[in-house]
Amino acid sequence: MHVITQASPHARLRSFPLGSIAITGGFWLNKQEINRQVSLRHGYRQLERAGNFNNFRLAAGVGVGEYKKPVFMDSDVYKWLEAVACDLANVRDPELECMADEAIALIVAAQLPDGYLNTYYQVNKLDQRWTNLDHDHELYCAGHLFEAAVAMHRATGDQRLLDVACRFADHIASVFGPDKRPGAPGHPEVELALVELYRETGERRYLELASFFVDQRGKNKMKGYGRFGPAYHQDRVPVREANVVEGHAVRQLYLTAGVTDVFMETGDPTLAAALERLWYDMTAHKMHITGGFGAEPDGEAFGPPYDLPTDHCYCETCAAIAAMMWNWRMLLATGEARFADLLERSLYNGFLSGVSLDGSRYFYVNPLQSRGGIARPEWYGCACCPPNVMRQIAVVAHYAATVNQDGIQIHQYMPMTLTANGEGGPRATLRVETDYPWDGKVRVTVEETDGTDWTLALRIPTWCKGAMLGVNGDVVEPFVIAEHVTTVRQTWQTGDVIELELAMTPLLIEAYPRVDAVRGCVAIQRGPVIYCLEEADQPDVNLLDVRLDVEAALHAVPRPDLLGGVVTIEAQGKVAEEGVWQGRLYRPVSKQTPTYRDVTLTAVPYYAWANRGAGAMRVWIPRA
Amino acid sequence: MHVITQASPHARLRSFPLGSIAITGGFWLNKQEINRQVSLRHGYRQLERAGNFNNFRLAAGVGVGEYKKPVFMDSDVYKWLEAVACDLANVRDPELECMADEAIALIVAAQLPDGYLNTYYQVNKLDQRWTNLDHDHELYCAGHLFEAAVAMHRATGDQRLLDVACRFADHIASVFGPDKRPGAPGHPEVELALVELYRETGERRYLELASFFVDQRGKNKMKGYGRFGPAYHQDRVPVREANVVEGHAVRQLYLTAGVTDVFMETGDPTLAAALERLWYDMTAHKMHITGGFGAEPDGEAFGPPYDLPTDHCYCETCAAIAAMMWNWRMLLATGEARFADLLERSLYNGFLSGVSLDGSRYFYVNPLQSRGGIARPEWYGCACCPPNVMRQIAVVAHYAATVNQDGIQIHQYMPMTLTANGEGGPRATLRVETDYPWDGKVRVTVEETDGTDWTLALRIPTWCKGAMLGVNGDVVEPFVIAEHVTTVRQTWQTGDVIELELAMTPLLIEAYPRVDAVRGCVAIQRGPVIYCLEEADQPDVNLLDVRLDVEAALHAVPRPDLLGGVVTIEAQGKVAEEGVWQGRLYRPVSKQTPTYRDVTLTAVPYYAWANRGAGAMRVWIPRA
Repeated sequence: MHVITQASPHARLRSFPLGSIAITGGFWLNKQEINRQVSLRHGYRQLERAGNFNNFRLAAGVGVGEYKKPVFMDSDVYKWLEAVACDLANVRDPELECMADEAIALIVAAQLPDGYLNTYYQVNKLDQRWTNLDHDHELYCAGHLFEAAVAMHRATGDQRLLDVACRFADHIASVFGPDKRPGAPGHPEVELALVELYRETGERRYLELASFFVDQRGKNKMKGYGRFGPAYHQDRVPVREANVVEGHAVRQLYLTAGVTDVFMETGDPTLAAALERLWYDMTAHKMHITGGFGAEPDGEAFGPPYDLPTDHCYCETCAAIAAMMWNWRMLLATGEARFADLLERSLYNGFLSGVSLDGSRYFYVNPLQSRGGIARPEWYGCACCPPNVMRQIAVVAHYAATVNQDGIQIHQYMPMTLTANGEGGPRATLRVETDYPWDGKVRVTVEETDGTDWTLALRIPTWCKGAMLGVNGDVVEPFVIAEHVTTVRQTWQTGDVIELELAMTPLLIEAYPRVDAVRGCVAIQRGPVIYCLEEADQPDVNLLDVRLDVEAALHAVPRPDLLGGVVTIEAQGKVAEEGVWQGRLYRPVSKQTPTYRDVTLTAVPYYAWANRGAGAMRVWIPRA
Repeated sequence: MHVITQASPHARLRSFPLGSIAITGGFWLNKQEINRQVSLRHGYRQLERAGNFNNFRLAAGVGVGEYKKPVFMDSDVYKWLEAVACDLANVRDPELECMADEAIALIVAAQLPDGYLNTYYQVNKLDQRWTNLDHDHELYCAGHLFEAAVAMHRATGDQRLLDVACRFADHIASVFGPDKRPGAPGHPEVELALVELYRETGERRYLELASFFVDQRGKNKMKGYGRFGPAYHQDRVPVREANVVEGHAVRQLYLTAGVTDVFMETGDPTLAAALERLWYDMTAHKMHITGGFGAEPDGEAFGPPYDLPTDHCYCETCAAIAAMMWNWRMLLATGEARFADLLERSLYNGFLSGVSLDGSRYFYVNPLQSRGGIARPEWYGCACCPPNVMRQIAVVAHYAATVNQDGIQIHQYMPMTLTANGEGGPRATLRVETDYPWDGKVRVTVEETDGTDWTLALRIPTWCKGAMLGVNGDVVEPFVIAEHVTTVRQTWQTGDVIELELAMTPLLIEAYPRVDAVRGCVAIQRGPVIYCLEEADQPDVNLLDVRLDVEAALHAVPRPDLLGGVVTIEAQGKVAEEGVWQGRLYRPVSKQTPTYRDVTLTAVPYYAWANRGAGAMRVWIPRA
């Protein structure tokens, strides 16, 4: 197990400021356009339809009608606003700005003079505010407000929401603290948001409040849920004593993201040691191959080690997002590529399956097997996931690269232009061209530079079994990969070109045999993309009868016409005939084996499943 | 698929009157003694503690304190009373009689003058009775009252509860009916109970009301639950059009039991055809090897075909009981051994796992795999299962034999004396001696007979791969088995002895490969008993690392000292060393296989699991 200490100045990475990485084409530009044209507008209509906006009107005293639950409805508005903010940093869109303005005005109007802001309590029982921290999500909603305010300030310079956020944060700080009320939120989120608010405003009291909430945890007193008890809220043990990820997965991962933020700002090594233990437990025992987390539907929770069902799993979209948020922070804190690797796994798989290709429908739960009948609805009564998807797509470029005094690091490959302004590292503009994730060629051109020497670091994903590097047409051979990163240090000139080619051979993946659910199965992966079989591509085959020939070659087939443009994988398989089993489920072990017919199987990216009807699907395929 | 028509007089079987089969020793006598000494008394205390009795006091106007939910609390009292009644038919126990008297007095006192009786509505909102048939269980509770009343009348001749039942049934008949209110219960149960009330009283209007409720079903209008909709209540299609078992498993199986009762009394062939389709769907697609039913925790429901998880299954104890009740009625209706076979599968496995060996703790959910941490609690907030277990154990002899004009049929083997009184068949007393389910020898002695010739029919279980039959010491060779029943017809003399020997070779069972959850696995069965591996018997082995050698012999080892006396099975297995996988969940397919060490595995009966701590357990074991 690695041990994280406070990162050296060289290892510690810095985000690019919002808006200084512009996606210029390809996979993610397409997603962002759909996100802008369809999803963000769909979200606005749904927030009106479901009553989220009206709750603010009621709180501001200008609404009519009933308050609409659940108690955390405000957070959906904040996440949608954060998504709009991040997208405005990509492209100004007057209609979206207008929608955001309307929402911001509602929020401003709803805030109480003392800074408190939570429509559920304001409309229904203001005298009882802060009385049910375990379940009523006031601090969780506050956190999403702070994140939205910081994003809006960074994106557009809008001060209104940041003022609301600071007034509310100050109010919270007047209630909770070492010399005031004890308490911690039943659903973490405010911790990471307070650190972001500190970063944006420089007000250290927000960092101190975040630390306070982290330190308050683990008294084993929260109400909990069902058989989980306080572990549901990560309140079983103090953060510094935690050894396992447990309880509600989104809560756990928002917490670890916030703790990483606190660690980055304080350098407290006891936090880092706990984070490393939790990351190990999560990745060694409790992670679906899709980068989905939280196996258990009951409690939306992490299950026991190796309990990773394919059909009865939960894998909430928000949990994949939370894992991306945590891994991003771990990457910043340590510079270690394993965190960017895991972020990529969730990004192209367990996260992206959460939205339909047309941007209008959403999965809350992301199973790895369907016997049919599973489709994305337009919205949810508990609608945490859809706006969370929107903000991740809008902000995806943010995860692509970092800067530090050593140079520039590229972690995620997409066509983009990135401009480093010289703060904390070199001044440079780079253009990246690639057809990733379908093709492993990545071309980086230095468009501007400051004439100093600095290091360009490129991540070599762990799935990649062969890579080539070239600089200005010369192959670098052998080129050094340390900890899954290759680096080139030189005095860069405008027009320098660095070419990386990552082999994208389709792979068959197997799981540790303790993962009982996928016993004897393999999954198909190419690049960062995990594949699945869908009924739509083999309509005459019952996916329960399919076996995959692991000795036969896999073929990658570009299909620009299919599912918005994908590469499919063709594999050789066998299909069992029903034969002697008809009408029986059980029999004494028999040498009588099924008869099989050969079949060519077509696998499509998992993220694109359930876009052609609600047919059967499976990621893990039994071996022939 | 078989087609049931109204059974011929010969095929149609009759129950022995309650109390005319006496268990004289062995497996079930032990269970009944624990049930009497521990469970029934424990139940009485729990019904007091949980507030069930007090709800009746409140309804009768003599209670103090709060009404305690859930809304079907009354039914737990009725099931407990039925259990006591059935047990009083076995053994008079003055203390239990006194407890039952107290409960009966409460019920009598609580009934309204118009016959209505439901403590939830009486205490909380009497003006709203019969307004929420879908979810509020009034008719369900009524059904359990009727069953208890009939059992008590049969067992002790007590008329008080039967009078309450008839008054309530008459009240229901005054509200619902072809020329009155439409409606059907959201939770079936009253249908079978009304038929029993008809049988006990001869009042045909009760049968007509049962038929009415059956006919009312399937308007696709009930409120339903979650994604199931009205199918949750078996309201999607009319009973006669149903092709699949669906929705809440206990609801489905209480309904089919009731429909079978209606069929038996009316002979309506359209009901029989539907029952046969449902039974086929259930046994061909939706049955755990333990005879547990209802795979899905969400909705306590039947899942899709072949979706039979081992760890994330539900298999509610009440669903196994409901299946036994239905199979018992199908056996009576048709005389076909397949129904007794399936009853036996649930009885020794998925039902019996519902109670601890000491009779004081209960499983509601019966998984086939545990990674540890699963233990039986003393009672449940929703406590339908514990008293349901009690009544099944008390009444188990009832399932052992039947009579008809052709003779006497023995379906379940246990040491017992059975007395046929000549009504609808021969007059005879038989003594059965056996150490079943541990030993396959069954000795039937004719203790009294009426000098006529009649047929003794003995079931040959489908698990049995070899049987021998002897009459008065002479081996009957070859002896005929038709449809899993062997028959001997002669003029019996006092002292005649029939000996049956059923081979109890331990078997390895495999599942239809479409059952994805048990891909590549086998289960151990000996006689009717399904086995499991428990951590307690192989403490140094992680049950996720175990593989079973299917070529090696299995050894049955009598262990009178273990788990109340069982036969264990020793099998040869292998245990994988952790090796190269440490800390990784996924890798490209590799030829690198784990190293294994040999191990002797000890399997114990599944029903006895979780009696030695909450260790890991598994029924299905991957093949080496």
